[in-house]
Amino acid sequence: MLQLYFAANTCALATHIALEEAGADYSTVRVDFRSNEQRGPEYLAINPKGRVPALVADRGILTETPAMLAFVAQAFPAAALAPLDDAFAFAQVQAFNSYLCSTVHVAHAHRMRGYRWTDDEAAIAAMQRFAPRSVGACFALIEQHMLAGPWVMGETYSICDPYLFTLAQWIEGDSVDPATIPKVMAHRQRVSERPAVRRAIAAELAPAF
Amino acid sequence: MLQLYFAANTCALATHIALEEAGADYSTVRVDFRSNEQRGPEYLAINPKGRVPALVADRGILTETPAMLAFVAQAFPAAALAPLDDAFAFAQVQAFNSYLCSTVHVAHAHRMRGYRWTDDEAAIAAMQRFAPRSVGACFALIEQHMLAGPWVMGETYSICDPYLFTLAQWIEGDSVDPATIPKVMAHRQRVSERPAVRRAIAAELAPAF
Repeated sequence: MLQLYFAANTCALATHIALEEAGADYSTVRVDFRSNEQRGPEYLAINPKGRVPALVADRGILTETPAMLAFVAQAFPAAALAPLDDAFAFAQVQAFNSYLCSTVHVAHAHRMRGYRWTDDEAAIAAMQRFAPRSVGACFALIEQHMLAGPWVMGETYSICDPYLFTLAQWIEGDSVDPATIPKVMAHRQRVSERPAVRRAIAAELAPAF
Repeated sequence: MLQLYFAANTCALATHIALEEAGADYSTVRVDFRSNEQRGPEYLAINPKGRVPALVADRGILTETPAMLAFVAQAFPAAALAPLDDAFAFAQVQAFNSYLCSTVHVAHAHRMRGYRWTDDEAAIAAMQRFAPRSVGACFALIEQHMLAGPWVMGETYSICDPYLFTLAQWIEGDSVDPATIPKVMAHRQRVSERPAVRRAIAAELAPAF
């Protein structure tokens, strides 16, 4: 059985949703960020990067959201979460998710976790001030060029959708004006109405103990 | 025929090598960073992100190195550049490449392109000072946990290898001590000796006109 290590309000939600959409047999393990559990020896044995998510499978442990999402799509082909038999279309899915991982999430992280890239307090504050511009530019690009609608790839829901939905949770916190990105906001609403998404969110918001 | 937009000394080299390894029928287009061609209207019509690489295929344009590498592997299965029939092993390949894209390359970019995340000159300088630590931590993690040897995934060369090789070009420039990462350095040497790698590098270093 698969085991998803997650923390609430992180990008782990994307894989959590995908597992629900796939009808996978899985369980979850909550990592307590308040006590910095993700940097403790037990969790570092699971994921030496000290981050969530991590997905424990029979054959080993997977990390990195784009890889985990593609794995869920390939391991549960009946759920049709990616165009598995079309290398070009699959690459388009991967390109979108890679952009979310390497550019959008990274821009957001400069508001919350600037210590990854400097130990200078003034520089961290400068990064925080700039995050609305860099995150806003990312979502503007998605709005104008990447979101076919109604789903990211067009008519077919895919592993791109829960991932965009997950990062779009942070739009207001990053002080990006929702009025400038109406397609992204409508997509967020559309994804939020799916039963699998509601189940994943309910499970993450449930009391930890 | 595939067309790869690239600039020398960028991560485009990884896909360039993969195309050579695959024996693909492709051509290259050099983007001139000195004249900021990547931000001009002609290139933005190819890739609205204003970055290299981009891969023009019959059906459209792909971006993002992990997606392009997986596409080359899937489009040229005879080259055996990824475990295409094993979802878990393929996810391990994807996880490694996603880490390079979203964490290692990003740490490096704070030395060269801090303006992506702040407009404060002092903050940009602070990021530059910190890059040896953040990039060094990434390569230490790769050294200790991710590089099975002789290739990244063990006995079989894959799309992970040209990508790690490409980012490892920047180790000395990022002031990371090569003596602390002997496996990474031996891997870099091993990859550099492959004929496909030599051909790709020779093409990128050739005079532009």
